Amino acid sequence: MKLHDFELAPSPKRVRMFLAEKGVEIPVVRVDVRQGAQFEEAYRRINPFSVVPALELDDGTVICESVAICRYFEETHPDPPLFGTGALERARVEMWSRRAEINGYLAVADALRNRAAMFEGRGLPGVPGGVPQIPELATRGRAAFERFLRMLDPHLADNEYLAGERFSIADITCFVALWFGARGKMGVPEDCAHLRRWFEAASARPSAEA
Amino acid sequence: MKLHDFELAPSPKRVRMFLAEKGVEIPVVRVDVRQGAQFEEAYRRINPFSVVPALELDDGTVICESVAICRYFEETHPDPPLFGTGALERARVEMWSRRAEINGYLAVADALRNRAAMFEGRGLPGVPGGVPQIPELATRGRAAFERFLRMLDPHLADNEYLAGERFSIADITCFVALWFGARGKMGVPEDCAHLRRWFEAASARPSAEA
Repeated sequence: MKLHDFELAPSPKRVRMFLAEKGVEIPVVRVDVRQGAQFEEAYRRINPFSVVPALELDDGTVICESVAICRYFEETHPDPPLFGTGALERARVEMWSRRAEINGYLAVADALRNRAAMFEGRGLPGVPGGVPQIPELATRGRAAFERFLRMLDPHLADNEYLAGERFSIADITCFVALWFGARGKMGVPEDCAHLRRWFEAASARPSAEA
Repeated sequence: MKLHDFELAPSPKRVRMFLAEKGVEIPVVRVDVRQGAQFEEAYRRINPFSVVPALELDDGTVICESVAICRYFEETHPDPPLFGTGALERARVEMWSRRAEINGYLAVADALRNRAAMFEGRGLPGVPGGVPQIPELATRGRAAFERFLRMLDPHLADNEYLAGERFSIADITCFVALWFGARGKMGVPEDCAHLRRWFEAASARPSAEA
């Protein structure tokens, strides 16, 4: 199998971090998104939605979408569990994954894609011909992300990780949102001490470098 | 247990449809989102993020986020499986769920929330004091949703349901996106015959009325 990857994009980073936590190594193929390689015929045959990452299995089966790829490896490599075990923990991981994604990760993407020069004409990913930026959406995304971080901070006063006692894919999504947000100077607010504690711990994990 | 619900909102509709497919009935408590009940202290104690739905278990444990609630019931009521079984099918369900959500459901939400009169001042959900609409984002969302439907159509030529042979939560998400989109006249394009076949079949399921 192989992972179609691009080292600067946040979605593949989620998969790489997940695999590092699982101790799984697989070959990668670089898709240079800055050069538009995701729109070339060769890649569109792998993922018609023209986004990275994509996992290609040895029989040619393709799994796209970062969380779907992570779920595949959760099933094939259950230890350590990163989606939780049992009904309640799995639901809690899903709850915090979605909060981190919708209020965190997607807000950062709105903020960067709709203003940063490197995303000019690419307000949305995967659209041939591009999509104009909406600067007002960048402003809204930045505010939404900070609002999310300030809601997360008190939660982390009583919880070591987002979903409770165990590091999970919810932490990976939140960490990658901050990793991506750093390009637009969207970091942990100075006065969020619990979030800072969590971020320092997450950053110190070997998987953070993946 | 009880479900904090609002009959006109799309996220609780996903949960109700999921529960109907599982044959599970639980009491509901109405949270009138149009009247701002989600921002009242009583509900913020249940979900500080001020969005519906929320599942409250008998011991007071709360699970928020529609997909997290669905996952809880998938674990406690495995039949029929709506998240797939086995590594590959689970990954495929997740892949199509995310495509349906990010390219479909969230695009419809952008389109309606940022233009429709009923969402004036509520460009994003769950924000006390509200968020101004961004009309340009409504236009972008509408175009993104149609683009998604046109990519889904050829896929449904070879697949009975989004994730393959079995009805899943990916179909529920896509169906609810169309159910919500109907308020802004965003329906199945006339020339998408496969999608039309799928939509008619989904609409005929008893769960579609949930």
